[in-house]
Amino acid sequence: MYRSRLEGKLDDITLEFLSSISDDSVISEYDILGSQAHTLMLLENEIVTRQEAVKILGALENLKKFDFSKKSDAEDIHELIESLVIKKAGKEAGGKMHTARSRNDQVALDIRMRIRDDINTVCFCLNQTIETLVDLAEKNQDAIMPLYTHMQQAQVGLFSHFLLAYADALFRDLDRFYVAYGRVNESPLGAGPVGGTSIPIDRQSTAKMLGFKGLVENSIDATTSRDFVAEYLGNSAILMTNLSRMAEDFIIWSTSEFSFIDLSDRFTSTSSVMPQKKNPDVLELIRGKTSQVIGYQTAVLSNLKGLPSGYNRDLQQVKVSIWPTSKIVISSLLVVNSLLKTLKVNENVMRDAIEGGYSISLDIAESLVRRGTPFRNAHRIVGNLVQIAARSGRPLLALSPNEVKSVIQDGEIDALELHRIIQSATPEHSLELRKSRGSAGKHEQQRMIEERKRKVKAYMTGTSRRTTEVRESFGLLGKTVASLIRNSVK
Amino acid sequence: MYRSRLEGKLDDITLEFLSSISDDSVISEYDILGSQAHTLMLLENEIVTRQEAVKILGALENLKKFDFSKKSDAEDIHELIESLVIKKAGKEAGGKMHTARSRNDQVALDIRMRIRDDINTVCFCLNQTIETLVDLAEKNQDAIMPLYTHMQQAQVGLFSHFLLAYADALFRDLDRFYVAYGRVNESPLGAGPVGGTSIPIDRQSTAKMLGFKGLVENSIDATTSRDFVAEYLGNSAILMTNLSRMAEDFIIWSTSEFSFIDLSDRFTSTSSVMPQKKNPDVLELIRGKTSQVIGYQTAVLSNLKGLPSGYNRDLQQVKVSIWPTSKIVISSLLVVNSLLKTLKVNENVMRDAIEGGYSISLDIAESLVRRGTPFRNAHRIVGNLVQIAARSGRPLLALSPNEVKSVIQDGEIDALELHRIIQSATPEHSLELRKSRGSAGKHEQQRMIEERKRKVKAYMTGTSRRTTEVRESFGLLGKTVASLIRNSVK
Amino acid sequence: MYRSRLEGKLDDITLEFLSSISDDSVISEYDILGSQAHTLMLLENEIVTRQEAVKILGALENLKKFDFSKKSDAEDIHELIESLVIKKAGKEAGGKMHTARSRNDQVALDIRMRIRDDINTVCFCLNQTIETLVDLAEKNQDAIMPLYTHMQQAQVGLFSHFLLAYADALFRDLDRFYVAYGRVNESPLGAGPVGGTSIPIDRQSTAKMLGFKGLVENSIDATTSRDFVAEYLGNSAILMTNLSRMAEDFIIWSTSEFSFIDLSDRFTSTSSVMPQKKNPDVLELIRGKTSQVIGYQTAVLSNLKGLPSGYNRDLQQVKVSIWPTSKIVISSLLVVNSLLKTLKVNENVMRDAIEGGYSISLDIAESLVRRGTPFRNAHRIVGNLVQIAARSGRPLLALSPNEVKSVIQDGEIDALELHRIIQSATPEHSLELRKSRGSAGKHEQQRMIEERKRKVKAYMTGTSRRTTEVRESFGLLGKTVASLIRNSVK
Amino acid sequence: MYRSRLEGKLDDITLEFLSSISDDSVISEYDILGSQAHTLMLLENEIVTRQEAVKILGALENLKKFDFSKKSDAEDIHELIESLVIKKAGKEAGGKMHTARSRNDQVALDIRMRIRDDINTVCFCLNQTIETLVDLAEKNQDAIMPLYTHMQQAQVGLFSHFLLAYADALFRDLDRFYVAYGRVNESPLGAGPVGGTSIPIDRQSTAKMLGFKGLVENSIDATTSRDFVAEYLGNSAILMTNLSRMAEDFIIWSTSEFSFIDLSDRFTSTSSVMPQKKNPDVLELIRGKTSQVIGYQTAVLSNLKGLPSGYNRDLQQVKVSIWPTSKIVISSLLVVNSLLKTLKVNENVMRDAIEGGYSISLDIAESLVRRGTPFRNAHRIVGNLVQIAARSGRPLLALSPNEVKSVIQDGEIDALELHRIIQSATPEHSLELRKSRGSAGKHEQQRMIEERKRKVKAYMTGTSRRTTEVRESFGLLGKTVASLIRNSVK
Repeated sequence: MYRSRLEGKLDDITLEFLSSISDDSVISEYDILGSQAHTLMLLENEIVTRQEAVKILGALENLKKFDFSKKSDAEDIHELIESLVIKKAGKEAGGKMHTARSRNDQVALDIRMRIRDDINTVCFCLNQTIETLVDLAEKNQDAIMPLYTHMQQAQVGLFSHFLLAYADALFRDLDRFYVAYGRVNESPLGAGPVGGTSIPIDRQSTAKMLGFKGLVENSIDATTSRDFVAEYLGNSAILMTNLSRMAEDFIIWSTSEFSFIDLSDRFTSTSSVMPQKKNPDVLELIRGKTSQVIGYQTAVLSNLKGLPSGYNRDLQQVKVSIWPTSKIVISSLLVVNSLLKTLKVNENVMRDAIEGGYSISLDIAESLVRRGTPFRNAHRIVGNLVQIAARSGRPLLALSPNEVKSVIQDGEIDALELHRIIQSATPEHSLELRKSRGSAGKHEQQRMIEERKRKVKAYMTGTSRRTTEVRESFGLLGKTVASLIRNSVK
Repeated sequence: MYRSRLEGKLDDITLEFLSSISDDSVISEYDILGSQAHTLMLLENEIVTRQEAVKILGALENLKKFDFSKKSDAEDIHELIESLVIKKAGKEAGGKMHTARSRNDQVALDIRMRIRDDINTVCFCLNQTIETLVDLAEKNQDAIMPLYTHMQQAQVGLFSHFLLAYADALFRDLDRFYVAYGRVNESPLGAGPVGGTSIPIDRQSTAKMLGFKGLVENSIDATTSRDFVAEYLGNSAILMTNLSRMAEDFIIWSTSEFSFIDLSDRFTSTSSVMPQKKNPDVLELIRGKTSQVIGYQTAVLSNLKGLPSGYNRDLQQVKVSIWPTSKIVISSLLVVNSLLKTLKVNENVMRDAIEGGYSISLDIAESLVRRGTPFRNAHRIVGNLVQIAARSGRPLLALSPNEVKSVIQDGEIDALELHRIIQSATPEHSLELRKSRGSAGKHEQQRMIEERKRKVKAYMTGTSRRTTEVRESFGLLGKTVASLIRNSVK
Repeated sequence: MYRSRLEGKLDDITLEFLSSISDDSVISEYDILGSQAHTLMLLENEIVTRQEAVKILGALENLKKFDFSKKSDAEDIHELIESLVIKKAGKEAGGKMHTARSRNDQVALDIRMRIRDDINTVCFCLNQTIETLVDLAEKNQDAIMPLYTHMQQAQVGLFSHFLLAYADALFRDLDRFYVAYGRVNESPLGAGPVGGTSIPIDRQSTAKMLGFKGLVENSIDATTSRDFVAEYLGNSAILMTNLSRMAEDFIIWSTSEFSFIDLSDRFTSTSSVMPQKKNPDVLELIRGKTSQVIGYQTAVLSNLKGLPSGYNRDLQQVKVSIWPTSKIVISSLLVVNSLLKTLKVNENVMRDAIEGGYSISLDIAESLVRRGTPFRNAHRIVGNLVQIAARSGRPLLALSPNEVKSVIQDGEIDALELHRIIQSATPEHSLELRKSRGSAGKHEQQRMIEERKRKVKAYMTGTSRRTTEVRESFGLLGKTVASLIRNSVK
Repeated sequence: MYRSRLEGKLDDITLEFLSSISDDSVISEYDILGSQAHTLMLLENEIVTRQEAVKILGALENLKKFDFSKKSDAEDIHELIESLVIKKAGKEAGGKMHTARSRNDQVALDIRMRIRDDINTVCFCLNQTIETLVDLAEKNQDAIMPLYTHMQQAQVGLFSHFLLAYADALFRDLDRFYVAYGRVNESPLGAGPVGGTSIPIDRQSTAKMLGFKGLVENSIDATTSRDFVAEYLGNSAILMTNLSRMAEDFIIWSTSEFSFIDLSDRFTSTSSVMPQKKNPDVLELIRGKTSQVIGYQTAVLSNLKGLPSGYNRDLQQVKVSIWPTSKIVISSLLVVNSLLKTLKVNENVMRDAIEGGYSISLDIAESLVRRGTPFRNAHRIVGNLVQIAARSGRPLLALSPNEVKSVIQDGEIDALELHRIIQSATPEHSLELRKSRGSAGKHEQQRMIEERKRKVKAYMTGTSRRTTEVRESFGLLGKTVASLIRNSVK
């Protein structure tokens, strides 16, 4: 590839070096819509004639069917679309499309429109995944399993508690995207190259036609700033780290050593010679793609560091980080959602892990505390019991009354009562008693599940409303364009 | 250093490797407050006796004067404070302070309390800096200077327009921090090691005492999640890139080649042999510290990637990124604010830069467009004029009528009128005519300044209210503690 | 795009999520070569028959003309090539190509072969660019200009000195790539999935056929490790920061305020209304792409962090960072090399900048030191002179004897002699006297230029030798394959 | 902290913002040595008198005992040391220490000297850790355990094979640091502020006195470039990712579900109520600190991106990333080395994991291939056997002859022979037969261990020689200084 390039024409190398056209096909539809809104506004303010406007709008309408993924010599999508419009609408009319506009406000517009749509999609997918998590939690309130700290068994808990923990983290991600939307949903169009214009344009009009809530007002700010991109990528990176936590848990639980869950074949790869092997490829890719998004976020922040005001061509490279991030985030959520729905939970294996360990110890100690034993004594007593049991590889249940008695100092507690407490300390009973707010206890699961269900509904309503608003603006814009073209034909 | 360590005791090396104590002094005050609230709640729910509570609270009260920056053998601040409390209050009472609590929820609490305070400080400083920018903009509405794209003169503009562009970017930063506060201001206390407790604690009560608006409910989520840290660092990194843009502009404008502004001696360094040299050290450090914060954000995201659920010791290293970020952000804002107040603006040099260049070209072309010349023709005409002028290094004003005439095709415009338009095209006039929303025009400056002033006030009110709320909660907590201690003495 | 995907078939989304096929076309040629070498080795060791080998080799030979950039349903290039081979060579023979091999060692092989070639190209381009810098330095030994610290004029210097500074930094980059080659140029082939094989393969034989110097021996290491990728990206990121420094210098020097250099039109963009404006787009993109590569390096390091041993699918995403990095690095060097060759240097403007400033001050002070004035006194004297001159905007040359006299204390130096020293302190004279090793002085330029020319030649020889070695191995492999096929046809 | 600062004196905030003094104590000793060498050179070249030199050298000698970690008002270490020297040696003599030198070359010198020492320490520790790994491998050649891909059991292997894989990765790290040393070990001293000097200094002389192998010649390059820092941090980040892989493996193997290894109590934390729990804190911190170093590397690369030539104050912040990186890398290696030496290997549990799984499948398939069964058939046969066995949770050994027979098609193999092969397929036998170069087989372990032992010795010799060279240079410098001072006293 490069060997041939070394002998190739330098002008081609330079053009490719400069060009963003291969990254731009994802914004072509927005560039067309933005140009239509701009043209309509120029007409409203008598900066172009009706006839000119119709020619431009018609040419743009045609381009909606154009395949922008084809190789092109143009440096970017704005130049390509303008040249195609001029070809179709004629130099006279077509040449006016760019009146009182510049590529600098135009590219900011396209990126904002694209991210706006992507945020709505991300919010929708997030909500969907949270809903699946909550539904799955509802079904798994009896799946008793150890809770881990430092990857060591720490307390008795429920699989549903993990699922709700993932859901709560994703809710915060949803919050972040939901709020960031407001900062993205402002129009930079009309800021010109950097300082605005003396031509009597109406920025609020184009903003409204394109479904924006307001303006990025200051023209230097509108053309220079990409903090909304950094915020979008930052939110994406955080979301991916949250997904990567779930992925890591599931990868570990899918090992033959843990065997807590089985992933559906659709999300694993296998080996012809070991067909029982289920490589959790999808989950590993979630982790790997998380790193990729972290890299994109780093790239953008590093790009912005030390850039002076006004459009600088460095900003072109910001786009390279956005599109793959959107793709990763959205497809990760879709795939995770689907993986969750087909997850097989091995309740028995989970429960066996409890029996084989000592994660019930803290519950026993708390029983003593509730009965009046000072906290540190309770810890010491149970700690010593665990030590005796662990030495011979037995569960606490198997300790003899004499062994139990041996750890009591100064008659701090009756040996028989202690023995009885140990005998009655089942995981089920512990989770009955675990009542602190947000705990892994039985009652809390039900309460939290209900609340989260309500929350999902509220977010879904908000996201739908926003999607509809954008779609309706585009619909209205399309109708106005169509009606203008139709009337001119008559 | 390391050579001696190589011969040193390995246990010391391991202890230092494990220890976070040197990063923890910044959260000691929060750890004490959290422990006091927890103790009061234990008393309220009869989990400790009044006498025990008084002993613990008294010991904690004493520790408020302790110097936690001293070298210590403790692994972390929680262990250190507990051991000091036990020393003072006795093993019996002191040992109960940790009932129904774990280091895992405790450290999450301390970090949240600290970031909560830092966000309030950042918001206050941001507001202050924005106010200074707007004030400075108000004073510099007549400072005509070129606007740049690609660091090349592009349009005629005003220094105030740059200042307002900075202000608008900082407003978005303020927004981001302001909203992130809500996600930080939730209490994880009472989540225990990972799964909650069966001891009848009241998480809402401690949350309220410590000024929190609610709970991070799910106990796995409360002890595991650090997305609020990543968000805080992400917002900080974005803010720093915004400051780095201003720094870059100012560094360039401070070169002897530009000489648009002079920084106060307080923010520059000099050379004994060239005392006129003013090295803009503070601004360069803003750029350099921006990179540092980008690195901290990368470190935290990379840390979280692939971590399983539950507290893992990796999370300890997250703290290393938070404190210096807060310090950088807050001190950068303070220093920038102060630098702005002492900035000397060389209006004449700025204006001369306009005269020596062709940034007025676009305004001339727009004059033609407003008079009916098609946009592309106007551009061609003015472009040709600039070419003639540039060839001989003269301003457009100096072109002779014949030269002006030479660029007109097919009588598209009257040569004399064009000559007249050029003659009357002063920067002042151009900025009178530049009226598009958010443009660099005169009228827009005034409008934008007024609006931003109002916005500053609104944010200041909100930030003050929050600061007061936290302070009042701590005040009430302090009074309750004091009264308990006082009553017990009697 | 995503809206349609949301309604699309989930299996397609999952497949695309899993697939690396679109990133793999750049390694297809290496996968084919690796498979041919593997097949030959299987034949040598009688693991496949001659007839089977011929069928496989023929099918692989055919695939050299296949267009792998076409859309495919295969998950990766290895699967695709194997299925195409089986289609052509039949299940019986084709199915044996994978004997004693796995995708895990295969993908490591392909990446190493590709990076090996890329390093040779990078080294070639680096050498070429350094050569151009040295040639340009040779031509610009009389271009006197200020040297800057903190972007403030600091000392008198030469344009050639900057060019040689860039060259020396690039030499270190060259060193780094040159040495990294050795760590890349080792074959992982034959490591199997993770633990090697009992089938009697000969790893050294395939390594030799493919031009490798040795093996990545340990089979876990061979399939797991990607530190050579991180090193390659790290070297690339450092190289790009070095190029970004040159870019930054040139961007500043291309402003109308500096005007030290003019870039050729081929590397700038312009504005129709301001044709004199030359936006240094190529240089801005160098900066922007530097950030991109930094992001890729971050992504890979973050990916590797915390991965367990053995192939994990996360590693697939490492590839996404490699190919664009190679493309950026190589094309940046080609474009910079070409930009340098067409650079216009405005010697007069550079020299004027000296006259207008005080960068000669240090040379004057050093004259005094050389005559015996203590260093600090010399600094004080010249500092005071500069202050007097700067106050009235005059050069030091214009100071009157009385003014000169006014700064002398205690007759530390004769006023007339000082006045004479100032008068004779031309930049030319200063650069004659500047003789410290590696200084900006005249004599040092010539010496350094000669030495660097020799160094370029040595590196060029080494790089050519390596390229030839790889090419000859591939040539020999090709001949062996062709001869086997030819003989079998007979 | 900040609340009080907000009310504090702004000058203090600005000073602290500018100051690097708290990061500089780690280079104080190098600054003193560099200043002594510079002073001796000034004396050699008669730029200072013997008497002046003695005063300066004496003052510097005194400072070797000074506590530079104390709080100071100085902006940096160079200023502080100079002022202390002037205080002691008098303004006349002391003021001359800085003749023909600047802080710009001085700070570059100090950083290089420090990193040079750190690289030697890192190389020493790396070698030591590799040696421990190889020794441990030697002891664990009989510890049969599964090898994993995707965290799923994949092949039968040995614990020693993992240890050697770690060792081989660390050897490459060692290579990288070893080579980077050469690029660090060059002296920038005498480059002056940016352009060298006309004072007749001798840069080679100071370089030699300080143990450098050569010069960073070009004075702009010498003061501007920090690529050696980025390389050092890059190598450190890669090394840490290699350590983090070992940490991840060990964390997983330490879970109660795996239980392959037990860490010594010294490297774990525990819980009072579950004393059997061993949280692998040290290993988790290795992972966490890896992320930290990745962040430092990102910070430095982002800092360098887009910086113009000449010293810029941004570079001060580079230091903030170096010192903690050195500390992390060195202490991680020390701690890992010590952890390895106390590791308890549960051979029985490891072997049981093999029995419970099907990782022997590939070996059985390879047996068939060696006996002539085509590769794909062998895979199909064994795959089907595994499926039958897995369905009923039995090992392959337990399959009945009839079950074995059921998977054979067209008499491709004799059923009884297949049954016999399965019966004889023990892990021990498999590892006997596994003979491919670098495989997990028995014979390869021994061969690789011997080779690595030799390699360790060679590196140790090289590292020791370098350390000695630096130490001897310093020794000689010290003697010269002492003798001068002694002689002057007489």
